Amino acid sequence: MKRHVASKTLLYPMPAVLIAAGYEGEIGLCAVAWIGMVSGTPATIAMGLRNVRHTLPLIEASGEFTVNVPRAGMEASLDFCGIEAGGGAGKWAAAGLTPAPAASVSAPLVAECPMALECRVTAMHDVGDYRVVFGEVVEIQADEDVLTADGNVDVELLDPITYVPGTREYRALGRKLADAYSVGKPLKERAK
Amino acid sequence: MKRHVASKTLLYPMPAVLIAAGYEGEIGLCAVAWIGMVSGTPATIAMGLRNVRHTLPLIEASGEFTVNVPRAGMEASLDFCGIEAGGGAGKWAAAGLTPAPAASVSAPLVAECPMALECRVTAMHDVGDYRVVFGEVVEIQADEDVLTADGNVDVELLDPITYVPGTREYRALGRKLADAYSVGKPLKERAK
Repeated sequence: MKRHVASKTLLYPMPAVLIAAGYEGEIGLCAVAWIGMVSGTPATIAMGLRNVRHTLPLIEASGEFTVNVPRAGMEASLDFCGIEAGGGAGKWAAAGLTPAPAASVSAPLVAECPMALECRVTAMHDVGDYRVVFGEVVEIQADEDVLTADGNVDVELLDPITYVPGTREYRALGRKLADAYSVGKPLKERAK
Repeated sequence: MKRHVASKTLLYPMPAVLIAAGYEGEIGLCAVAWIGMVSGTPATIAMGLRNVRHTLPLIEASGEFTVNVPRAGMEASLDFCGIEAGGGAGKWAAAGLTPAPAASVSAPLVAECPMALECRVTAMHDVGDYRVVFGEVVEIQADEDVLTADGNVDVELLDPITYVPGTREYRALGRKLADAYSVGKPLKERAK
């Protein structure tokens, strides 16, 4: 028996990442959970930013931003970037985070995050008080210590943070349940 | 020291959900990881569907779909819905899943999933071979056994599935790291 749930913005799980952008010497930083990959041709993410966010005009002016994936242990810095309005170099310092140059865009990376997506804005779409920014992923870089010998990201070494809406908590990723593109094969064989 | 990563479609973590839609008696079902909340006014999700997906024309024709959150243990059914092309009632049966009526849309729910978002299409945006569908969340329902006494979703009872790109695996959510909107407050106090 299903029951009505009061909130309408619940999706499990959500990422918890730091968005950075810069324009003419000003640098912005904010925490975002409303973000997802939406295309592979080219690789494109979409994220919703409330239109009062300080980082949004920097993204609009520069046409670039970075998506920085924090690791477990960085919850205080991440959370601060979500609850502290405004931006600027002072916000980075107060969060204990350091801007670093990206490889392919002018937007800064968060040096402390083990992985970052570098994005160029390709479209924007307004939904109410939110601006949905589409960003083509032009480069991904990760710290050597989260990469396997063959250059793939090892999610256990990455140890990313998940945002849980509703009860509003951060959680780590948990145990492996199954291999994707594999565990469903017996059902596919049976369906033939 | 950061290194280039070959893939450009990595974001951690990603959801792993089942999208259902129906039109004139035909019902479709597919697995999606490229989805995220993008607005709160009104509550709106965006998801990227490759334009060959069988479920997409059903979403376009009916203007409605449901986002069904499977729980740990349902990996085989979920994975099957990702690797099996096409759709129809036979796909539901082969996946071991049952269509059930939704509360506010004509699209079916997946009865076995403990939680579902009911959505109405508000916009579409093409990015390469993918169509990004914007859906306003008009209703969320959840099984009583995943709800707390005060009607909130308990994520440990829900036990949702995460998709890990790159190494392509399903994982459960893990341990609680911290309370959001709280763990960053000491940094905010210090920043004043």
